[in-house]
Amino acid sequence: MTQMNGKRVVITQTSAFMGKDLVDRFSAEGAILIADDRDLKVQGAAEALIAEAGHVDVLIANLAAAQPRTSVLDTDDGTFQAMYEAMVFPLHRLVRAVLPMMISRRQGKIVVMGSASALKGMPNYSAYGSARGAQLAYVQDVGTEVAPHNVHVNAIAQTFVENPTYFPASYQATTEFKERIKGAPLGRLAYGWEAAALALFLAGNESNFFVGQIFPFSGGWVTR
Amino acid sequence: MTQMNGKRVVITQTSAFMGKDLVDRFSAEGAILIADDRDLKVQGAAEALIAEAGHVDVLIANLAAAQPRTSVLDTDDGTFQAMYEAMVFPLHRLVRAVLPMMISRRQGKIVVMGSASALKGMPNYSAYGSARGAQLAYVQDVGTEVAPHNVHVNAIAQTFVENPTYFPASYQATTEFKERIKGAPLGRLAYGWEAAALALFLAGNESNFFVGQIFPFSGGWVTR
Amino acid sequence: MTQMNGKRVVITQTSAFMGKDLVDRFSAEGAILIADDRDLKVQGAAEALIAEAGHVDVLIANLAAAQPRTSVLDTDDGTFQAMYEAMVFPLHRLVRAVLPMMISRRQGKIVVMGSASALKGMPNYSAYGSARGAQLAYVQDVGTEVAPHNVHVNAIAQTFVENPTYFPASYQATTEFKERIKGAPLGRLAYGWEAAALALFLAGNESNFFVGQIFPFSGGWVTR
Amino acid sequence: MTQMNGKRVVITQTSAFMGKDLVDRFSAEGAILIADDRDLKVQGAAEALIAEAGHVDVLIANLAAAQPRTSVLDTDDGTFQAMYEAMVFPLHRLVRAVLPMMISRRQGKIVVMGSASALKGMPNYSAYGSARGAQLAYVQDVGTEVAPHNVHVNAIAQTFVENPTYFPASYQATTEFKERIKGAPLGRLAYGWEAAALALFLAGNESNFFVGQIFPFSGGWVTR
Repeated sequence: MTQMNGKRVVITQTSAFMGKDLVDRFSAEGAILIADDRDLKVQGAAEALIAEAGHVDVLIANLAAAQPRTSVLDTDDGTFQAMYEAMVFPLHRLVRAVLPMMISRRQGKIVVMGSASALKGMPNYSAYGSARGAQLAYVQDVGTEVAPHNVHVNAIAQTFVENPTYFPASYQATTEFKERIKGAPLGRLAYGWEAAALALFLAGNESNFFVGQIFPFSGGWVTR
Repeated sequence: MTQMNGKRVVITQTSAFMGKDLVDRFSAEGAILIADDRDLKVQGAAEALIAEAGHVDVLIANLAAAQPRTSVLDTDDGTFQAMYEAMVFPLHRLVRAVLPMMISRRQGKIVVMGSASALKGMPNYSAYGSARGAQLAYVQDVGTEVAPHNVHVNAIAQTFVENPTYFPASYQATTEFKERIKGAPLGRLAYGWEAAALALFLAGNESNFFVGQIFPFSGGWVTR
Repeated sequence: MTQMNGKRVVITQTSAFMGKDLVDRFSAEGAILIADDRDLKVQGAAEALIAEAGHVDVLIANLAAAQPRTSVLDTDDGTFQAMYEAMVFPLHRLVRAVLPMMISRRQGKIVVMGSASALKGMPNYSAYGSARGAQLAYVQDVGTEVAPHNVHVNAIAQTFVENPTYFPASYQATTEFKERIKGAPLGRLAYGWEAAALALFLAGNESNFFVGQIFPFSGGWVTR
Repeated sequence: MTQMNGKRVVITQTSAFMGKDLVDRFSAEGAILIADDRDLKVQGAAEALIAEAGHVDVLIANLAAAQPRTSVLDTDDGTFQAMYEAMVFPLHRLVRAVLPMMISRRQGKIVVMGSASALKGMPNYSAYGSARGAQLAYVQDVGTEVAPHNVHVNAIAQTFVENPTYFPASYQATTEFKERIKGAPLGRLAYGWEAAALALFLAGNESNFFVGQIFPFSGGWVTR
């Protein structure tokens, strides 16, 4: 398939979260990939990445940080703010850097790889989940703002998807995981390629009517 | 493209709503179409359609009735219940008829062409909107119920999509329409083929992780 | 307390669902109660009730029917439609009968006692849950439509609330119930008076800024 | 009325947002108020406030910052992060400081005064709206986490409410405002006391079945 034939696609933080599956699929679809793994928490890194990339048709904002899994009482300021420094502030920098060329060309797609944990309360998720919630509200606002410029910004709010950051094999072996997965009607993890397929749909030309929208992707765990 | 190559796809009420665009796209994708236009309000019609269809891989439940656009005070019982007889009761009959073969094969897709009007309050929509709301809750419940059988039931909740039933050219020419469309960030109608593309995505093999989910499709008018 | 002092409040189907708790609380608040238990499925019954009631300040639409708890395959047309005949069609008749006087006085409150099962997919709920979904979409539409007349229509979408229809002591003793309640963060049933307190808040003068809104009430089981 | 009789209630940032109306209402209800207006962006300020307050029954987290109203392109890092420093990081510090005593007493209420702008995309809201989105996701997670301790954490997501920070008289006089308010079915601003009445309901003993929930409060502008 060649849905991305010749399109220039930036994928960030490729060693984490959905990076590998996104790279595999967008490559297979003929994209010219700018697959990047620099640390986007560093001042200026996001802007440099976009500057180096040149012409960008699609930005896949794949940002991740290990979930601290601490109770709210045990979540100190540093732990809390680290989630924002890894997942929220770099998102804004990436988006702000890439939008001008998309707006001036009246063409462009941004897909944010987010989390369903922002859609439903979970214990020990206050730092991680709230930062993911910031991402989703950000996508709603930016998506609405740039819609009249024919630029499409949407987010996937996923959980129960195989990936090395949040669902490594070691975690899948735990009792905790086995209990949690019962909460999903499908009762299985998504393959990474399934999340990549959704990202591809949102990056392609057949999804132009979506703007500022959040796509829960969770095997039925959360559907709104 | 041949995403539906050889798959047997039932599309209902083809002369209305998204029928034509669905038929066009699924044909182009290689589906073996059972494109039907019988009146599904008639007792036994839904069951007969499925019986005649034989093996069904995909059911696209495209059901529509003219929106009465009456105030709640002017909506008599007959008008109110007619919405359910056209859009809700036949949906259950179709689903109930087609599910056994899908469950026994552990494979099948049902896509319900629903309405975003069920997601946001609108004046003069009490009959139509509430019937559309019944459809969406039905999809949530059935989708959750049959998920363990590897059958996937989802719905599109659309508005501002070109189609002969709800957005004919005559309506697009009205002042009312021109005011309404301002409420959608994208500021345009979707082409019918864009809704068909979403239906195709939900009918295909790359969306197997979605169950019982509602996809708002409205150019940003409603995103939850 | 006397938040309802002298207000004329209709409560329907008082022997079922939240009837008793609503009667107790609204009485205690000084309401002049029209507590009615006639069968509202009967043609003309809803209209007769409102006509007999005379001046109505508040309508609490408390409508219930035993949940069939059948799989979608086992839900025949009669079972399916019975849910709508008990909970949806009478709701419209009640609302249509009571609204004219509220609109002409530019004052009135309608509270619909609905179900959270319409907000989240559940197996074996296709008939019951979809009818409850119709109620919620109806409230959104009617609430939006009559808002400019200063009439306020809202709904409670509850579950895990003690009541004789859905959570009788016999059901609370089952293993199924004990499993289900684990899904609610609070881990307990609401007392009936807690749902009545919410209904009271929505029927009173301090909640005039809510229109067409759905209030999930479920101990955290569903919050959207 | 004396719903708060003798309860010790902390209200923050009283000179901004809903501060004055909250103080007025909770005073009138007999609360022992700790009405504070220190700058909570300052390191240690939140913790000091709670330490000084001693026994706290209710925390009303009223946090605000002027909306920059800049396009995403014009929102520099400083402007963006300032929203989080004013509204998100202090929220966590307040909550973390006050929860231990509430958990140990198995009693306590936290109400976060949030914004409906986090629930619906709006142009020029990327910084403000995303920070407000972080607040709401935070409330979902913390509310779920502490529910088993009988501590209740919920949020109001308001807009179109009179207050000196976001809807001063000068803004109400603008054409922009007059256009925006048309989007709300009720077509009016809420009085500040109406938001305070909702906060009171959520701070009182009759709303104990709500945890981790977001209450849209917007005259029908957004209802989910």
